[in-house]
Amino acid sequence: MDAQSAGDGLGASSSRDGTPTSGSSVLVDWLAPKAAALESRGLTRRLRARAAGEVLIDLAGNDYLGLARDPRVVEAAVAAVREWGTGATASRLVTGTTALHAELESELAAYAGQETGLVFSSGYLANLGVITALGGPGTLLISDEHVHASMVDACRLSRSRVEIAPHNDVEAIGKALAERNEPHAVVLVESVYSVLGDAAPLPALAAVASEYGAVLLVDEAHGLGVTGAGRGSVAAADLAGLDHVIVTMTLSKSLASQGGIVLGPPVLREHLINRARSFIFDTGLNPAACAAALAALQVLREEPDRPNAIHTTAARLASACGVTPASGAVVSVPMPSPQAAVRAAGICLSAGVRVGVFRPPSVPDGISRLRLTAHAGLSGPDLDRACEVIPAAIKEVS
Amino acid sequence: MDAQSAGDGLGASSSRDGTPTSGSSVLVDWLAPKAAALESRGLTRRLRARAAGEVLIDLAGNDYLGLARDPRVVEAAVAAVREWGTGATASRLVTGTTALHAELESELAAYAGQETGLVFSSGYLANLGVITALGGPGTLLISDEHVHASMVDACRLSRSRVEIAPHNDVEAIGKALAERNEPHAVVLVESVYSVLGDAAPLPALAAVASEYGAVLLVDEAHGLGVTGAGRGSVAAADLAGLDHVIVTMTLSKSLASQGGIVLGPPVLREHLINRARSFIFDTGLNPAACAAALAALQVLREEPDRPNAIHTTAARLASACGVTPASGAVVSVPMPSPQAAVRAAGICLSAGVRVGVFRPPSVPDGISRLRLTAHAGLSGPDLDRACEVIPAAIKEVS
Repeated sequence: MDAQSAGDGLGASSSRDGTPTSGSSVLVDWLAPKAAALESRGLTRRLRARAAGEVLIDLAGNDYLGLARDPRVVEAAVAAVREWGTGATASRLVTGTTALHAELESELAAYAGQETGLVFSSGYLANLGVITALGGPGTLLISDEHVHASMVDACRLSRSRVEIAPHNDVEAIGKALAERNEPHAVVLVESVYSVLGDAAPLPALAAVASEYGAVLLVDEAHGLGVTGAGRGSVAAADLAGLDHVIVTMTLSKSLASQGGIVLGPPVLREHLINRARSFIFDTGLNPAACAAALAALQVLREEPDRPNAIHTTAARLASACGVTPASGAVVSVPMPSPQAAVRAAGICLSAGVRVGVFRPPSVPDGISRLRLTAHAGLSGPDLDRACEVIPAAIKEVS
Repeated sequence: MDAQSAGDGLGASSSRDGTPTSGSSVLVDWLAPKAAALESRGLTRRLRARAAGEVLIDLAGNDYLGLARDPRVVEAAVAAVREWGTGATASRLVTGTTALHAELESELAAYAGQETGLVFSSGYLANLGVITALGGPGTLLISDEHVHASMVDACRLSRSRVEIAPHNDVEAIGKALAERNEPHAVVLVESVYSVLGDAAPLPALAAVASEYGAVLLVDEAHGLGVTGAGRGSVAAADLAGLDHVIVTMTLSKSLASQGGIVLGPPVLREHLINRARSFIFDTGLNPAACAAALAALQVLREEPDRPNAIHTTAARLASACGVTPASGAVVSVPMPSPQAAVRAAGICLSAGVRVGVFRPPSVPDGISRLRLTAHAGLSGPDLDRACEVIPAAIKEVS
């Protein structure tokens, strides 16, 4: 039976025994043409499931410090699952806050030079939470044009007036701050940008925010564990702990886990507990993830030289590919087209090297690229191999 | 030094050695008055960190099936951490999809009678992803007034026109669908409502959506593992697999883990992989959480009677408190004021029983309440005790 003949008013497109039918279908009619349009532009994304035993030289993942399989981090997660169970069981406001969450918050805040922290179940939700909790009609949000999608979505959700500033343009930000009518303003930047891999001029941004009574929110997703000998770019610039400079971080990159955190003064933490909807209405981060992030942080403290290897590796990769040296772990290699980027990545993969491919809408400037992430754990021979394979693949498709 | 005397243009509110100062502070000046206003209305929320060994009768968490500490679920998570590491390492589109994610998606889809599934790192992000990916100027979103905050936020973010329908009012939904100018429409409901605990009239909703060529999106956060002998209310109403009925579920309640999933036909899954920003720009769910959810699902399959205990317990709790029997695990007990709700919960806690307290803005009708969640794992004596303690506490504060 199909939708036309069903007669039960339910518009089935598959029969009740599960056999698909050829009848009209609300979702197929709606979405299949969009899928075809993407395909014709070379922009279709497909998921590829990794196998556990996969042996590849990985320059695509964000496990910058190589800690996701470190025995100290793994066994901390194992112990937490056995002690605390597999889930947080509810919102952080109900039963979802454990002593582990509290420990992670105070340890990570102390490491980054901040007074307090509040853990969210993802970095995306941390940005959504803090920006919407500070946003609203009385707040101007000024966003660098290259900030992460979570900040862009947060701006849209905030009910604030939003100004998009050209990338790293401190003067434009100052102008928008000076001309505002709103009593409050928050400037949104990343310390190291996710796709292009370049850095924000943090001291100048902090100064201009201060001059106009604004808050500077710095996303350190790609700074933690990488810049400032691990402590991030805000600490490196001696801005940590300033009242008007607040920070978000992810636990899913250098800390080899999952989740996000907002760092700042106690008054901000209290405000988020009471106002951040993505905190209040979400289940707490699972105990395994809390413990893994805590253990990874401990490794970072014990081995303060570990981030150095990221920079050495990033410099070699950038040099081999003929692109600007990176500010952090991300080496960004522009490609002539999305199709060329996909083909080059395929050639690398066949040669045992996995690289990231970023295409619109994941690239702020619309330019498709290979995205190489430098890892502290990469061996010398693997890096040598990557520095042969990747330039050859780029040459082949260009 | 304080902001006025700092002279470095950075507006420090604490000195560089970390000592707080009494100078003016952007964030304190902005947020402290808001905190005081909340406090005066009895609406301040505070986090209370659980200790690992805490012994309480828990009627607040959402571990409905009592599986968060089940050895089968715990050991599955342990094995996954050792096999796969502690994090997914990147977006699902880069290196963040493992064979575990793929297995969880196909197993959970099959269990719920759906063709495909796509796992997100939280239920909040699953709702945000599917609704924004289907939303836009060409789509009318019609939302029941009691849906979860994640659906409300998704509507705001979607750029769609949004109509809020009175609670469970099928006629109003039909009218909005009939009068729309948009080519597409999605109706947003929960199968079992989170706070009030009542059920949606799913067959009538599916019929009206079909009549007007609309999609019905059902959030089964509180249905999975509870209604339909565990398979949820959509399957129980024989609506699973219909082309125009799609489902979101959380992995953080009955499945004792973390994360969310969107279930529906393959064309929807492909659309989400390409368009759902909260999927594309978020790190994949960590391996421990995937494995825990898979193992909990396996327990549910092997022990199909397990959800029955939820309903027996919920009926006894509702009867003891003199309120309407619940449709699922949530027993909702209205209280005269937020202060009374907090006091009653405090009395229960002193007597060893933890109950949830929901106050504005977490209650759709503005009425503060105790929220009791029935668990399959509750022992007879513990339930007897809860049925004494809670009514006595309510009486004491009323």
